[in-house]
Amino acid sequence: MSEHDLRVGLVGAGRMGADHAVRVHERTSGARLVAVADPDLERAQQVAEGLGARATQDPYDVITASDVDALVIASPGAVHEPLLLAAIERGLPVLCEKPLTPDAESSLRVLEAEEKRGRHLVQVGFMRRFDAEYVELKRLLGSGELGRALLLHCAHRNPSSPPGFTSQMMVYDSVVHEFDTTRWLLDDEIAAVSVRAPRSTAQAPEGLLDPQLVTIETAGGVLVDVEIFVNCGFGYQVRCEAVGERGTALVGADRGPLVHRNGQWGGAVTADFRDRFGAAFDREFQRWADAARRGEVDNAGANAWDGYAAAAACEAGVRAQTAGQRTEVDLVERPDFYARS
Amino acid sequence: MSEHDLRVGLVGAGRMGADHAVRVHERTSGARLVAVADPDLERAQQVAEGLGARATQDPYDVITASDVDALVIASPGAVHEPLLLAAIERGLPVLCEKPLTPDAESSLRVLEAEEKRGRHLVQVGFMRRFDAEYVELKRLLGSGELGRALLLHCAHRNPSSPPGFTSQMMVYDSVVHEFDTTRWLLDDEIAAVSVRAPRSTAQAPEGLLDPQLVTIETAGGVLVDVEIFVNCGFGYQVRCEAVGERGTALVGADRGPLVHRNGQWGGAVTADFRDRFGAAFDREFQRWADAARRGEVDNAGANAWDGYAAAAACEAGVRAQTAGQRTEVDLVERPDFYARS
Amino acid sequence: MSEHDLRVGLVGAGRMGADHAVRVHERTSGARLVAVADPDLERAQQVAEGLGARATQDPYDVITASDVDALVIASPGAVHEPLLLAAIERGLPVLCEKPLTPDAESSLRVLEAEEKRGRHLVQVGFMRRFDAEYVELKRLLGSGELGRALLLHCAHRNPSSPPGFTSQMMVYDSVVHEFDTTRWLLDDEIAAVSVRAPRSTAQAPEGLLDPQLVTIETAGGVLVDVEIFVNCGFGYQVRCEAVGERGTALVGADRGPLVHRNGQWGGAVTADFRDRFGAAFDREFQRWADAARRGEVDNAGANAWDGYAAAAACEAGVRAQTAGQRTEVDLVERPDFYARS
Amino acid sequence: MSEHDLRVGLVGAGRMGADHAVRVHERTSGARLVAVADPDLERAQQVAEGLGARATQDPYDVITASDVDALVIASPGAVHEPLLLAAIERGLPVLCEKPLTPDAESSLRVLEAEEKRGRHLVQVGFMRRFDAEYVELKRLLGSGELGRALLLHCAHRNPSSPPGFTSQMMVYDSVVHEFDTTRWLLDDEIAAVSVRAPRSTAQAPEGLLDPQLVTIETAGGVLVDVEIFVNCGFGYQVRCEAVGERGTALVGADRGPLVHRNGQWGGAVTADFRDRFGAAFDREFQRWADAARRGEVDNAGANAWDGYAAAAACEAGVRAQTAGQRTEVDLVERPDFYARS
Repeated sequence: MSEHDLRVGLVGAGRMGADHAVRVHERTSGARLVAVADPDLERAQQVAEGLGARATQDPYDVITASDVDALVIASPGAVHEPLLLAAIERGLPVLCEKPLTPDAESSLRVLEAEEKRGRHLVQVGFMRRFDAEYVELKRLLGSGELGRALLLHCAHRNPSSPPGFTSQMMVYDSVVHEFDTTRWLLDDEIAAVSVRAPRSTAQAPEGLLDPQLVTIETAGGVLVDVEIFVNCGFGYQVRCEAVGERGTALVGADRGPLVHRNGQWGGAVTADFRDRFGAAFDREFQRWADAARRGEVDNAGANAWDGYAAAAACEAGVRAQTAGQRTEVDLVERPDFYARS
Repeated sequence: MSEHDLRVGLVGAGRMGADHAVRVHERTSGARLVAVADPDLERAQQVAEGLGARATQDPYDVITASDVDALVIASPGAVHEPLLLAAIERGLPVLCEKPLTPDAESSLRVLEAEEKRGRHLVQVGFMRRFDAEYVELKRLLGSGELGRALLLHCAHRNPSSPPGFTSQMMVYDSVVHEFDTTRWLLDDEIAAVSVRAPRSTAQAPEGLLDPQLVTIETAGGVLVDVEIFVNCGFGYQVRCEAVGERGTALVGADRGPLVHRNGQWGGAVTADFRDRFGAAFDREFQRWADAARRGEVDNAGANAWDGYAAAAACEAGVRAQTAGQRTEVDLVERPDFYARS
Repeated sequence: MSEHDLRVGLVGAGRMGADHAVRVHERTSGARLVAVADPDLERAQQVAEGLGARATQDPYDVITASDVDALVIASPGAVHEPLLLAAIERGLPVLCEKPLTPDAESSLRVLEAEEKRGRHLVQVGFMRRFDAEYVELKRLLGSGELGRALLLHCAHRNPSSPPGFTSQMMVYDSVVHEFDTTRWLLDDEIAAVSVRAPRSTAQAPEGLLDPQLVTIETAGGVLVDVEIFVNCGFGYQVRCEAVGERGTALVGADRGPLVHRNGQWGGAVTADFRDRFGAAFDREFQRWADAARRGEVDNAGANAWDGYAAAAACEAGVRAQTAGQRTEVDLVERPDFYARS
Repeated sequence: MSEHDLRVGLVGAGRMGADHAVRVHERTSGARLVAVADPDLERAQQVAEGLGARATQDPYDVITASDVDALVIASPGAVHEPLLLAAIERGLPVLCEKPLTPDAESSLRVLEAEEKRGRHLVQVGFMRRFDAEYVELKRLLGSGELGRALLLHCAHRNPSSPPGFTSQMMVYDSVVHEFDTTRWLLDDEIAAVSVRAPRSTAQAPEGLLDPQLVTIETAGGVLVDVEIFVNCGFGYQVRCEAVGERGTALVGADRGPLVHRNGQWGGAVTADFRDRFGAAFDREFQRWADAARRGEVDNAGANAWDGYAAAAACEAGVRAQTAGQRTEVDLVERPDFYARS
């Protein structure tokens, strides 16, 4: 509705930011893009152009603009903290791509700022929470039909890793999703992380341990194994099987037309995360914008506490990887401000 | 974008209309609902209420309103013709739920009016054209990977039929979708229709022949068989297998989490057409609104000619059903105005 | 058990006969091959050689040999009648590859001979009756879990047809299996057959109508559609979906390891009927031999009446094909001797 | 062939022995059962009765009988060693149900005896090596189509555990199969084992850690995770996904008719290992008997070395379980007598 359209500012005009710009402007009802910031002004202009938004190099121009009602952050994690603090200061609803910040300590500062501001403003872009299959899996686990959850088996595969991708980034950029889905699906915290690696694929760049096998223990006693494989070669695949006391449920099975041809049956694997989770992103943005227009946050989304907990798990994961042993996750006590509803 | 929001009027506030009202207003970017008409004013008000739209009994109030940029028709097929003619007269883009009109003759009058107006304005709501799997099937058939299409095997199942549903309505309301997908997938016209029925299910109301087996012949020589079963009991299922010279492709396979429990593997069947085709409706509306704002029509959609051809096939289908024999479809020559692009 | 081994004679040493020779001798417990007859003596010798059996050109040498306890007929259907009559005369249990005989009239003579002999001796090699999935489908239909059956949707696909294969042979050699499975699954007789053909695949030899769509009506009012496609190109596939009043059941879905590779998910299609139904043949032979050693017939198998009924349906099918119209099947009254148990 | 029938003696007439008795006698061509031994004479008689075999309490009566050509051992693992030594002494081919013996040390004594006898006589009943899907998986891995194997993900689930089943037996009786399939699929030895357990299911008896998560490292650097869950409640399920450098392959997917009923799609889970691996057992026995009649061993089967290696892995597994840490497997050097062919 035009009078009440949510006017969105975007910080970060890389691949993800460009996607989100179009998503906000052309696929999110009741929202429109008004400003785009990127250190690379040309890139900001390319994204803004055609959508009727203005471009700038300075993210604070966007954050402080009087015609910006809400903010999307799609810049690298390393610069999130000051952006988030500024947005919180102004009272702007923010949808921040993961990670909240790259480490638990800086994430805590964001939590403190938000609590001080006295209002929930920050949502972290863990889009799997909006995937129809994951939502149904959470419903199944909550219904008790499968009994109490005991194990999760996860696989997270990318066809190939981008240049410069490191073994640590496999935890920070990839397994971070499994940290969040584990917490969210089980309504539980992560207690410890272990990492092991088999021999690496010859398809991986020199020095990258790929694949790796991450084991997560939750405070409640659930074990989660995660295969992270960023040069699997064949496509993008995210799978999770929950094993409960009375049954199992698997999400992430193959989709699309079943073709018989040339001695083979089967179909096409999704090519990348946008192919696999595009609808989840759309749903996430629509709900976020709807809530922001109402002056609320979407409780289905990940909040700042979830971002902090994921950062702490990533830290433990990387320590586990380096030390080659089980590493516990240290979390501060959960503030009342972030108490489970 | 608020300045350019497409202001949509809705005629028909039944179950489908109510769905579309929310779809336009809350899930279609760049569109908003401004007016709702229904002979049952209270029903119109219920739909309009909360979306900030006004309600009326008279559809022409909506069609002629100066603040209505585009029209959605979701009233019964029997009243479509005058509504369409009025909208065409005014030059309003229209998204008309199927059928275009209930018979070929009245559909032809709509075609003539549109041609006379000199502008493509009418889209018929055959939403399968926007379903990701059907789109991929069409791409596969077009790519030549499967060779020339020879056969389609279709099944179209509803859990139960609404009160008053007749054997003829099984053709008009249900098989009409297969008539359209056949034409669209194959880029071919329907030449003849036959209908047979096995013994009927005891779950069907007295007098309803359910299921039925419809055979379609296309002008190009493809045979299509369609099981239409509106009291199948177990859920909503729409399936199409294309058989080509070098392979087959099936759409409509089961979805969702794979559960193992209680001696069984499997999952949940989609409950109804909204569950199965909700995303297709959303895509259809977004693309229609985007095109309408640009003053264009969405070429991916079904146009008035497609609506006419489906009406003609339905007529033949019902004659075939009554006569118990193969019945040819008579189409007028396709006007240049509706020439394939 | 050596003292009681069933000594089997084989008539016909072509591809099927050679398979059955090894099956009897090396995979059927309690049975061994003693004699092989084929007009091509060298072929008979090749099959007999290494299995310790003797070879002959004359089938009656085998049928009348005192050390032959039971007979397998794998010669062309055209010569089955005299072989069957001779075996019945001698009181030999016979496992006769389909067809019983090529036409209903000659099949009737076999029935009469068997009834006159007063003992059930003949089993027809409809091996699907021994396929685990088909057996489970029959159980499901019998259990009432799906309600009464209303429709069967069948597909029967071969990668390519042998030289000299004709449109009529598509009925006699291929659809004959669907005639038998229809009768067996539904415990019903075939009342009428119709045949239609879409445009033919360019992969078929000149003059072959391929694929064809056969519609079967049973006496009980069930409709069955069968796609027969003998040059489908991609593999051997046999599928049957039963549609009942309360649910459906599909057999013939794809099997084997699920592979993800090169942008695709899927697996290998079975290459031919031996790949698909090898285990069913083994089970059929084991049960047949076990029964023969006990002086009985295996009630799970197809008897001479079933062979006659299939022959009558094939005749109607070919007439329907030629005449282009629905053709009724004329069956003699079922003799008490063949009354359902 | 009667003159050359393999006369088989059976030691152990429990559930597994009774199954094997019928398998040998009624489903293995060229083999027959002549003698059955069990400490419970009545049980031996029940199994022997009707198959024309004699019964005894003393296994050595069977092992030394002049009319016994080959031996099947289906008694508890704790008594295997002396039986094997006696059979080796007599030069009898033996098909010994797993385990070879309960510990590595006693297995080594069997190896030494066999080597001293100078002839391969012992096959261990790891039947998965004869399952069509596992065989195809091994072929895929050997073909290089998937690149080098990097990981295996396994699940091994039983509906419920028998009375008296312990956490250690989960390794010895259940995971032992994964130890063997890992070695066989990868043609690699097991280097180390770790065991972890999440919270246990309430469906498990007091004191049983169920499920458990076993991690296997091979000498070649492959990581294998195994979920062993013996009270999963829903059925018997054995699954293995191999992850290679260029693709993955999964065996153990669900089978059987696909049913739609009552809002659900799916099918029946196999009830137990006989349901799932019955055909593999049959193939194993047929091949074993065929080889034994030729005075050979079936190279497709597991030999005494494989039995020893599995016993050593089980020992390490139980130590890992008790100590709560990664435990290496100590193997003696592989004797030339057991060199890979």
